[in-house]
Amino acid sequence: MRTFILYSRKARTDNRFKIEDLIESGGRMDVVCSCIVSSLWLSHRTREDTNFFVVLNGSPNPPVTIWFNGSKLLKVYVDEKTNAKWIKNLLSFKFNKKWKEISGTKISRKSFQEVLKELNGKIYVLHEKGTPIQDVKVEKNPIFIIGDQIGLPSEEERFALRYGEKISLGKKVYLACSCISILNWICDERGI
Amino acid sequence: MRTFILYSRKARTDNRFKIEDLIESGGRMDVVCSCIVSSLWLSHRTREDTNFFVVLNGSPNPPVTIWFNGSKLLKVYVDEKTNAKWIKNLLSFKFNKKWKEISGTKISRKSFQEVLKELNGKIYVLHEKGTPIQDVKVEKNPIFIIGDQIGLPSEEERFALRYGEKISLGKKVYLACSCISILNWICDERGI
Repeated sequence: MRTFILYSRKARTDNRFKIEDLIESGGRMDVVCSCIVSSLWLSHRTREDTNFFVVLNGSPNPPVTIWFNGSKLLKVYVDEKTNAKWIKNLLSFKFNKKWKEISGTKISRKSFQEVLKELNGKIYVLHEKGTPIQDVKVEKNPIFIIGDQIGLPSEEERFALRYGEKISLGKKVYLACSCISILNWICDERGI
Repeated sequence: MRTFILYSRKARTDNRFKIEDLIESGGRMDVVCSCIVSSLWLSHRTREDTNFFVVLNGSPNPPVTIWFNGSKLLKVYVDEKTNAKWIKNLLSFKFNKKWKEISGTKISRKSFQEVLKELNGKIYVLHEKGTPIQDVKVEKNPIFIIGDQIGLPSEEERFALRYGEKISLGKKVYLACSCISILNWICDERGI
């Protein structure tokens, strides 16, 4: 499996955001939704070999982690708005530190570090100062960690780097969803 | 300049679509909006060296072409919904075969072929059976042509190929917005 983890500092952790205003009321829930699409969608079909986790750290009750598993997901959409509706629905359930599965998607109150501890695979943290991806031999079952528009907090970055390494896509800084599209393509090309 | 042209078979050519339903009522206007983002946005800033054209061929009065010029655009947004609102606004103006400029964005009733005739640069048509991009020397001022979720009509493809060549991103078929993110990254890496 290929895994993407998006760390969102501000995305709302209850269902009290407006689908019509994902940027402000959702704490950039638009970023989360565009990353779901670029992680899990090819043209006309989803990627069965890919996991997408998003750790929501916004108000009122962080953290919340949502896990879309490409091998079993039933509810994932190709547009931002419908994915946002599904997240809003997930956040209306009661759940705790354990994964709760709702129509194929899992949700819990696990933190970024708790999620990382559950996963097996080499960790790659996307970072402007990382090794150029062209010079990195990406191992099988890679776990790519991506910050949102603000970036990864230093404490979380340090934790991830205990088990991983920094990689870079070059001198330009790309949108999170573009990073994921590029990484997916690179892995496809390399047969990872 | 780097240029992307999206050919949309079904995207609506008047403003009578619902922002809340870009897929059905907009004729996959969601695809158009996600391609605007992946063409023109880096993290925190837009690409000044990039043009994005979309040719809308849906009801009721095709074709309509909208031209976002990265070197002068004033109205472009990082989320699907706000871009859709801007397109809806543009489509409410009166315009004809000539470019009409509205707050930096241009709109006209030009067809795909008419737009192509106005542009200078080598044309690359994205196609499953094209030459792998790794084996293609992409020239300066490239014009990349991308079909929507259905693909390019054969007549338009033949026209574009008179002046261009087919290129491929590999065996998988990607979303149009992912294709654009990948092509932007490849051009960035190659310094084109």
